[in-house]
Amino acid sequence: MSLLLCIMNAYHLNYAMPDQQRTTFSVHEQHTGKIGIHSEVPVNTREDLSLVYTPHVADVCKAIQADPSLAKKYTIAGKMVAVISDGSAVLGLGNIGARAALPVMEGKCVIFKEFAGVEGFPVCIDEQDTEELIKTIKRISINFAAINLEDIAAPRCFEVEARLQEELDMPVMHDDQHGTAIVVLAALKGALELTRKSAVSIVISGAGAAGNAITKLILDEARDGGVSIGSLKVVDSKGVVSNDRPDLDRYKKELAALTAQTKTASMADALKNADVFIGVSAPGILTQEMIRSMNKGPIIFALANPVPEIMPDEAAGAGALVVATGRSDFPNQINNALAYPGIFKGLLASGITRVTSENKRAAAQTIFEYNRPSLALDKLLPSVLDKEVPTIIAAKIVNMK
Amino acid sequence: MSLLLCIMNAYHLNYAMPDQQRTTFSVHEQHTGKIGIHSEVPVNTREDLSLVYTPHVADVCKAIQADPSLAKKYTIAGKMVAVISDGSAVLGLGNIGARAALPVMEGKCVIFKEFAGVEGFPVCIDEQDTEELIKTIKRISINFAAINLEDIAAPRCFEVEARLQEELDMPVMHDDQHGTAIVVLAALKGALELTRKSAVSIVISGAGAAGNAITKLILDEARDGGVSIGSLKVVDSKGVVSNDRPDLDRYKKELAALTAQTKTASMADALKNADVFIGVSAPGILTQEMIRSMNKGPIIFALANPVPEIMPDEAAGAGALVVATGRSDFPNQINNALAYPGIFKGLLASGITRVTSENKRAAAQTIFEYNRPSLALDKLLPSVLDKEVPTIIAAKIVNMK
Repeated sequence: MSLLLCIMNAYHLNYAMPDQQRTTFSVHEQHTGKIGIHSEVPVNTREDLSLVYTPHVADVCKAIQADPSLAKKYTIAGKMVAVISDGSAVLGLGNIGARAALPVMEGKCVIFKEFAGVEGFPVCIDEQDTEELIKTIKRISINFAAINLEDIAAPRCFEVEARLQEELDMPVMHDDQHGTAIVVLAALKGALELTRKSAVSIVISGAGAAGNAITKLILDEARDGGVSIGSLKVVDSKGVVSNDRPDLDRYKKELAALTAQTKTASMADALKNADVFIGVSAPGILTQEMIRSMNKGPIIFALANPVPEIMPDEAAGAGALVVATGRSDFPNQINNALAYPGIFKGLLASGITRVTSENKRAAAQTIFEYNRPSLALDKLLPSVLDKEVPTIIAAKIVNMK
Repeated sequence: MSLLLCIMNAYHLNYAMPDQQRTTFSVHEQHTGKIGIHSEVPVNTREDLSLVYTPHVADVCKAIQADPSLAKKYTIAGKMVAVISDGSAVLGLGNIGARAALPVMEGKCVIFKEFAGVEGFPVCIDEQDTEELIKTIKRISINFAAINLEDIAAPRCFEVEARLQEELDMPVMHDDQHGTAIVVLAALKGALELTRKSAVSIVISGAGAAGNAITKLILDEARDGGVSIGSLKVVDSKGVVSNDRPDLDRYKKELAALTAQTKTASMADALKNADVFIGVSAPGILTQEMIRSMNKGPIIFALANPVPEIMPDEAAGAGALVVATGRSDFPNQINNALAYPGIFKGLLASGITRVTSENKRAAAQTIFEYNRPSLALDKLLPSVLDKEVPTIIAAKIVNMK
């Protein structure tokens, strides 16, 4: 804990400098939040008014009452993405509550619009009981075309996503799981191609939302021959997730089964002779000594935000060949902003109502292939600012229909 | 019922012509709904991205976690009005459900933005149990600065509004009640001034959301000497709402007490020698014979939408001196769009968290005085398209703080 606090303090000294703080606060204050609503139709005459409001709006209401599917054609329910959070696992800040999560959800809506032309509206929900959260989301879902769940803690996020996907006729995606997994898979494919590694031994640190989805997506991709995996172990704060542990919930039990782990061990032990470390866990938990125990020239994705599992220069100093983080101030930023705008753009354009492993792996493949001509140790991925990426991901998904 | 159907058919023949239908549907389809989301901040560089999203957005989240009131400064919760309906009493269409109500709520958001520069987002809620509806609204209220309830059936609307106003620290206004009451009071003041009537006998047809609020607002105004009332009776489908009736719910009991009615009677009887009829009830229920039984040159507000209690030409033919309806295709349109944009603009600008009778009467007075130079039998109110009206209503409310 003292190490963590020390690193957190260092972070504040280095990255939350007064000037930048002032800038970020003024950016948020200038327009009272970061998104705005506009009318798509002019209202200058009585006739204009009668078309958008009484009396003629009644014709549209009656049409939807008779055929609810018409809501997708005539209302924002045909285009609007709900960016929903209960504020229980926000960035690296933890359970800060729904109200304090709103700036992040607005930020996601900004990225949706600016990068992919997708319209999103933030819906922070002040309720953390799983059943009540599901009920609330279902009741307001009629205003939306798709649901982007965000920053909901594991294991609640698994139940919420699965139930909503089952009970609603629209795409539901928890971005902390799948957006992250897609970008990790794209970066992993790039790193493996560059380093010519195969039958790799992977250790994933973190068995929460992201760790769960990354594990499943990599295993699915390996099953189809898209990546060559020797072994994959998931580690949580107590060690390797394996079926000899009595403390696992159903989601971790599933991970133990999927990764065929029967005997737990410490992360340090698991990393011996491993090729790849993927951290979606906690600041500073990966040491240089652990990296030195891995196979030569390992691949290190230290994605804890804002403070990674190990700082890039330390990782490189211990022999890491490829290093990625979640941060914009180092090379190889693994950020789900590279995936979700295009994914939702494609889902909305295609009318696909369920995000599948195939969709996600196709998105990862699209990102990987797009970046291939520029692929380098410090260029595993395209820039998150490259607006071509959402366009090609969306096109790929539309083509999968 | 056959009369009603006949009038409804006439309405469809006259007002929902194929051309207009096509136009209203194409207006709704062109942009997939009538409102859009835009980003208020550009995202062209990594620094832009780091300010609106990770890592620096975390500073804003932490500030709000420490002081929740800062959400009003840094997020859309400082400006956004939720336009909320359960779809239980939509226009004159009745309980068409939340999904089919969405075009109306979007229309309200268009009017908010176009007339008053206020940003609103529609939240149709697929739940009609009072307690569950209240719970749901409270959970999502953190994304908003104010709540405009809309098209919720009586008596549920009274409980929902009162509870939310009590339990949330933001203005909550059911527009079908108070928006309508404000515009009716403004029009009534104009009609009384024009006709030089005083100590008038008023019959209000309809004891639902609008009838309830109109009754209370007129009585409050009379108590302060703003209008001169002799008597006021409220009539529902069973007759005068009076304390000898065993069938009254608590809201109608309150109306019976406020209007000091001890003996019920039919609407026809109540109208004998009355001066003013205010209908917020059902199509075609006011007959020429009833108007002829009223005092000479009566004031008739036939506001049922889209088909009024009596058509204006019939009312005039029976001797009505002043006639108003809810419709844009006749003179004297009484439409709450004249009030709510300015009311909410003023509430947001002033930080007032509760809409009082004083606020509402000041808004009515503002509309009445603004129109006074043009006041005429066919010009009781300013045009709903006059964008000066929300500005002066808002200024009035801000000055009341």
